[in-house]
Amino acid sequence: MTHHRYDVVGIGNAIVDVISQEREDFLDRFELVKGSMTLIDAERAIELYGAMNPAIELSGGSAANTVAGLASFGGKAAYIGKVRNDQLGDVFAHDVRAVGVHYDVAPGTEGLPTARSLIVVTPDAARTMNTFLGISAILDPVDVDVDLVAAADVLYCEGYIWDMEVSKRAIRKAVEASKGAGRKVSFTLSDTFCVERHHSEWLELVDGPIDVLFGNEHELETLYGCDLEAALDMLQGRVEVGCITRGALGSILVTPDDRIEVAPAPVDQVVDTTGAGDLYASGFLFGYTRGLDLPTCGALASLAASEAISHVGARPQVSLAEVAADLLG
Amino acid sequence: MTHHRYDVVGIGNAIVDVISQEREDFLDRFELVKGSMTLIDAERAIELYGAMNPAIELSGGSAANTVAGLASFGGKAAYIGKVRNDQLGDVFAHDVRAVGVHYDVAPGTEGLPTARSLIVVTPDAARTMNTFLGISAILDPVDVDVDLVAAADVLYCEGYIWDMEVSKRAIRKAVEASKGAGRKVSFTLSDTFCVERHHSEWLELVDGPIDVLFGNEHELETLYGCDLEAALDMLQGRVEVGCITRGALGSILVTPDDRIEVAPAPVDQVVDTTGAGDLYASGFLFGYTRGLDLPTCGALASLAASEAISHVGARPQVSLAEVAADLLG
Repeated sequence: MTHHRYDVVGIGNAIVDVISQEREDFLDRFELVKGSMTLIDAERAIELYGAMNPAIELSGGSAANTVAGLASFGGKAAYIGKVRNDQLGDVFAHDVRAVGVHYDVAPGTEGLPTARSLIVVTPDAARTMNTFLGISAILDPVDVDVDLVAAADVLYCEGYIWDMEVSKRAIRKAVEASKGAGRKVSFTLSDTFCVERHHSEWLELVDGPIDVLFGNEHELETLYGCDLEAALDMLQGRVEVGCITRGALGSILVTPDDRIEVAPAPVDQVVDTTGAGDLYASGFLFGYTRGLDLPTCGALASLAASEAISHVGARPQVSLAEVAADLLG
Repeated sequence: MTHHRYDVVGIGNAIVDVISQEREDFLDRFELVKGSMTLIDAERAIELYGAMNPAIELSGGSAANTVAGLASFGGKAAYIGKVRNDQLGDVFAHDVRAVGVHYDVAPGTEGLPTARSLIVVTPDAARTMNTFLGISAILDPVDVDVDLVAAADVLYCEGYIWDMEVSKRAIRKAVEASKGAGRKVSFTLSDTFCVERHHSEWLELVDGPIDVLFGNEHELETLYGCDLEAALDMLQGRVEVGCITRGALGSILVTPDDRIEVAPAPVDQVVDTTGAGDLYASGFLFGYTRGLDLPTCGALASLAASEAISHVGARPQVSLAEVAADLLG
């Protein structure tokens, strides 16, 4: 199949988010680590969901949020991830297509259901994710359309999907297809526990195919096993650009011969930090695929992240192209 | 089965709302009548959903919203409505139970899926509903636990559920059980098109078992086929209390020998009017079942309605007991 040209193709766990607001003691009661993502089985999902307040359901999935954000900026995006032919799978497919993202991975017809992440938002706006991966975790290499990957300037991979062997093979196939076509590969470290689980393989990825690396300061520290300054030193020169986020402190862009401090964008009220990193990547990649200078890429990233945290849910609720109109001239 | 005492048992279509924001021209394109509820079949649901923007899913259903609101005030509520044993059915059951509402109608195990309402919110905050009733429309009289109904001070019936013969028999059974136990029966007119469809039967209900009638001014005008003043005259004396809402103008409580004007509660920004009427009924019934005076019942109703319209989705997002703390002393 011939594809039009895309700015970014994202690959990751296709997930519907189930978000509720809970008091702090909910985390203690279920021994949840604030701000982390924990993989849970069906039994634990039933236990947690049964204890959660009324929730809202919205499409999520880290890389899917990123490509949805990219589309909201006006970019051309595609997505690779697996849902089941069930109601939540329909929701996921609808939402990602409705924002203009190309998505044609065939839904599974048997076995596990579509993934869901039970996301607890505490009064401090922190999100703690408990993800039942369902069928998303068995993204098969056959689901990766190499022509589609080759048609995108940048491949964007989420670290979360590295947990299953089969999905790992799918990502490796996508990375090879991207590199083979002379494209760029970007990757997000996703979560400190993820970094711990896949530490040595990811060090190789960073030294190998990854051109643009995303992660927050804690993830980078975990990757290199040292403090932020030393970790930034370690990263420098290994990738074309490292985009390291620091929450309310903004972010740092690391290139082989420079470090650029990026200010955060103002937010009236931080409501829910779900998606902050995902949308940061949207903004950066939108600028990057247009060849904009790095400070502008960073400013677009900050803007998108600030939009994401101003409401419940990870995906943009307004046009990022309009939000960024001043920057984009 | 023996039941504890409830303030209100609601009976209605058990629905998950699928809400998106659309431009005005979406309504023209699909010939939708702003502010109305239209019943749609599966084919039309696919067509509309396919054209809708990314959406969020939240539990809805008129009477279910009302009992959820009542529980948020601190009242004791139960619900009767039918879902399927599917993902949206799980969402519905979770959300209504999570707010403390007793709900134990067995989910269907075959046939139609759980109902969903495709709700289009336009920039003026008006909501236009397109409801695929699914299994909710075949609420069977056997699903009505007469002991549960007899255990509630007030039965609350939504007019929407009157469209199917089988559900109509279920409501009639509930009304008889309530009356037989010496309880009060309340009913909402739901929608002008509903009123048109069931006009003569509902006139009989108003003259018969209904003690407390809810409706907006247009629904009441349609019921009596005349202007508001004349319709209020027609209503007066036929029910113990008629609660007639008028949007931003507030509402009017009609008793056999009085008319009480109720002011609307202030709202910073009207975002989505979905659930305004449902939550108005929550507030009124919370006060009514506590024997509060009618002006206070009306003030509670206005407060709950203003909370509902200040955000996307019909159900309260904050504790109504806290919102109403001043009024409730």
